Amino acid sequence: MRASVRVITIGVADLERSLAFYRDGLGFATEGIVGTEFEGGAVVFIELAGGISLALYPLAELRKSAGLPPVKEPVGEARFTLGHNVASAEEVDAVLAEARAAGAPYATQGAKTAWGGYLGTFSDPDGHLWEVVWNPDLGPL
Amino acid sequence: MRASVRVITIGVADLERSLAFYRDGLGFATEGIVGTEFEGGAVVFIELAGGISLALYPLAELRKSAGLPPVKEPVGEARFTLGHNVASAEEVDAVLAEARAAGAPYATQGAKTAWGGYLGTFSDPDGHLWEVVWNPDLGPL
Repeated sequence: MRASVRVITIGVADLERSLAFYRDGLGFATEGIVGTEFEGGAVVFIELAGGISLALYPLAELRKSAGLPPVKEPVGEARFTLGHNVASAEEVDAVLAEARAAGAPYATQGAKTAWGGYLGTFSDPDGHLWEVVWNPDLGPL
Repeated sequence: MRASVRVITIGVADLERSLAFYRDGLGFATEGIVGTEFEGGAVVFIELAGGISLALYPLAELRKSAGLPPVKEPVGEARFTLGHNVASAEEVDAVLAEARAAGAPYATQGAKTAWGGYLGTFSDPDGHLWEVVWNPDLGPL
């Protein structure tokens, strides 16, 4: 198996709400909801740097597609993060402010890390975490 | 905020076990566990196509770094997938077989999709899902 991820798909409770958060709140470009010609096909694709895509997909469909039962609780305990690297500590704070303004239900203050970087975290409406990072050894993509 | 994900970090219960699964089982190249010179710094980085990285990081540290309490249950209900795109339906089946041989605790059979593709899903030891996909409109990265 090659070490490759082409699409990161996050399960969402309300596709319209998530579209509004990512497109209108954070400013990510997208064609909006596509795939409605297929049963269970409604999805939002957002092109990311590096040729990969972020897909917003109803959680119930994501679970069904994987052959798994529906989740028990609407918002889960986050077990992964999407790391958004920026070029300075100031930029971390600016992105966190932007996320708060976009209605992120959770956002920390930026803080220095033990390894010499600076990071903060926000969540989207479904509790998926974005880690906003300035890492002096790993710039933005 | 730019639409960019530089690092996908998945929280794991046992870093050595996850390293064995991804490196020895799936064959992903990695330097192994690094960052042990920092408290809570032990992490495994795997370079993916397109200039992004997959990080394996203890779930307790991931949650702490995000300012969140520890999770209640060791394995969560998956709410996202990492999409691994391949060039044919046969290759989907081959990757699923490889994942089973690597000890994936869960793997479906490959099956045709409504939109004309072919996909199957497997999970890693912590329940994180990989969706192995042949999409005629979206080849491997």
